[in-house]
Amino acid sequence: MHVPDAPLRVTVLSGGGGGAKLAHGFAQVTSDLTVVVNTADDAVLHGLSISPDVDTVMYTLAGRIDPAKGWGLADDTAAVLGAMRELGEDTWFHLGDKDLATHVVRTARLRAGATLSEVTAQLCAALGVGARVLPMSDDRVATLLRTAEGTLGFQEYFVGRQHRDEVLGIDLDGIDVARPAPGVLEALTSADVVVLGPSNPFVSIGPILAVPGVHEALAGSPARRVAVSPVVGGRVLKGPAAHMLASLGHDVSALGVARLYAGLVDTFVVDEQDAHLVPEIRDLGMDVHAVRTVMGADVADRARFARDLIAVAAAPGR
Amino acid sequence: MHVPDAPLRVTVLSGGGGGAKLAHGFAQVTSDLTVVVNTADDAVLHGLSISPDVDTVMYTLAGRIDPAKGWGLADDTAAVLGAMRELGEDTWFHLGDKDLATHVVRTARLRAGATLSEVTAQLCAALGVGARVLPMSDDRVATLLRTAEGTLGFQEYFVGRQHRDEVLGIDLDGIDVARPAPGVLEALTSADVVVLGPSNPFVSIGPILAVPGVHEALAGSPARRVAVSPVVGGRVLKGPAAHMLASLGHDVSALGVARLYAGLVDTFVVDEQDAHLVPEIRDLGMDVHAVRTVMGADVADRARFARDLIAVAAAPGR
Repeated sequence: MHVPDAPLRVTVLSGGGGGAKLAHGFAQVTSDLTVVVNTADDAVLHGLSISPDVDTVMYTLAGRIDPAKGWGLADDTAAVLGAMRELGEDTWFHLGDKDLATHVVRTARLRAGATLSEVTAQLCAALGVGARVLPMSDDRVATLLRTAEGTLGFQEYFVGRQHRDEVLGIDLDGIDVARPAPGVLEALTSADVVVLGPSNPFVSIGPILAVPGVHEALAGSPARRVAVSPVVGGRVLKGPAAHMLASLGHDVSALGVARLYAGLVDTFVVDEQDAHLVPEIRDLGMDVHAVRTVMGADVADRARFARDLIAVAAAPGR
Repeated sequence: MHVPDAPLRVTVLSGGGGGAKLAHGFAQVTSDLTVVVNTADDAVLHGLSISPDVDTVMYTLAGRIDPAKGWGLADDTAAVLGAMRELGEDTWFHLGDKDLATHVVRTARLRAGATLSEVTAQLCAALGVGARVLPMSDDRVATLLRTAEGTLGFQEYFVGRQHRDEVLGIDLDGIDVARPAPGVLEALTSADVVVLGPSNPFVSIGPILAVPGVHEALAGSPARRVAVSPVVGGRVLKGPAAHMLASLGHDVSALGVARLYAGLVDTFVVDEQDAHLVPEIRDLGMDVHAVRTVMGADVADRARFARDLIAVAAAPGR
């Protein structure tokens, strides 16, 4: 329950794209923000421990993200990658120089015994990020995609093959023994509002919810629980969520996403252009609101969206 | 014994400075060159396996060394190091971006199970280095310097503290169980000429000779064995060799160095300006020649020096 005069306690579950932008919006409107970030697409490349979603959230909150690409650091160079290519490395995964510093530092500190949570907290402090950025788990979880070409690791599927393969099934290697990172369950149970960001429900939000204990903590939380549809007008802005909805047998619409979250959240938010879906989603037993969900690079618009979500979360049921 | 018409088989023992330049000279005059390189100043920094002498030799032979500094790659930038500093790393050890690619690749391949010899061969091939560059050992050996400030690791002493501490003793951690890297003993016993480069006798040549089996292989080799004094006119061009000679109780002169190698080499080469020391060094039981030993950045001058050494090696005893 929100204590008057205390900042609103908001927890955002996020992948690397829309969730990060939304978290950025919330960072403008509350000083008590926690972002729980998917780590199931983490990878080790060139011996470096890379956490793409954690980095995207961190860089976005720091105002340092490359605005054009939506990942990596702004104004970065790629001298190291070029030299690595010359040395015979397969450099299909882009790594900017300043971004690479993050991976080198993370890898060194993990090898020295720190947890991913601890390293993430240190990196956030160094980058001036005030929000708590929590990896979903300090244990290794790896999204594997079953395709006609065989089972693919996430970055191989997503970056290496540009998510062109039809996904026939998703496995989360290591999920059974993964523990929520310190603070994750508390962030779900002690928040005023928990927001499932407009991230891919299968490979961004899904792995977070699949960490043992997370789904239960969220389902039992007294927080207002709000999910935002990443599907707008039957399409997603970026990434393979629409294709995955189709290939995995779901409606390619906000309704298809809503069905995935029914029973877990109180409130479902669709984009204005999907207002016609509101009655059908409401029938799933959720509060439904249609607001403008498409965010620009403009932080003011992200903050506007965060305020809209706080407003709908506070609205009386239905 | 040199087979007529076959290229002269030359093996150079080298640290990171003069030895690398001399090896570069030999690379111009024979196609059968092996460089056995000190690895006792290798270090792990930021989780990266760094082999400074191997890299200096490799970059010098590739014609890629930074000519002004004598280490690192020419025209390199330092974007990663700057970003690492921002992330709270202590960046006292300079690492250029392209140079860092070498360390990232080496570290990844070592972690994947390759030996330092194997990685070095791969890097040399990628850089177009024709000579065989062999680390003295694939096992970890670490030079430790006893000083009034306590025992210092090599890079801490050399780079971190700019070799300002008086060295009271030198230990080679791990040397007792280190094995010569594949090819090292053969490079000593099958060469026509083995050259101990003008590198620091204590922390560059010393560790190579201290690897179990190396001293014996060299002492028993049928090759002409030639050592070059790094001390010229009582001074060294670069580095702490002169101070070490003094603090460890030796003559700060080519004579002091010659005494260290007496019994191990046939021929000792001093600079022209040390010609007056020739009789006294000869009394140690070695052939002695005074030639111009100072090499410029000019590869032609390095080749000239290599030819001079081949000539003195071929000269009849005394």
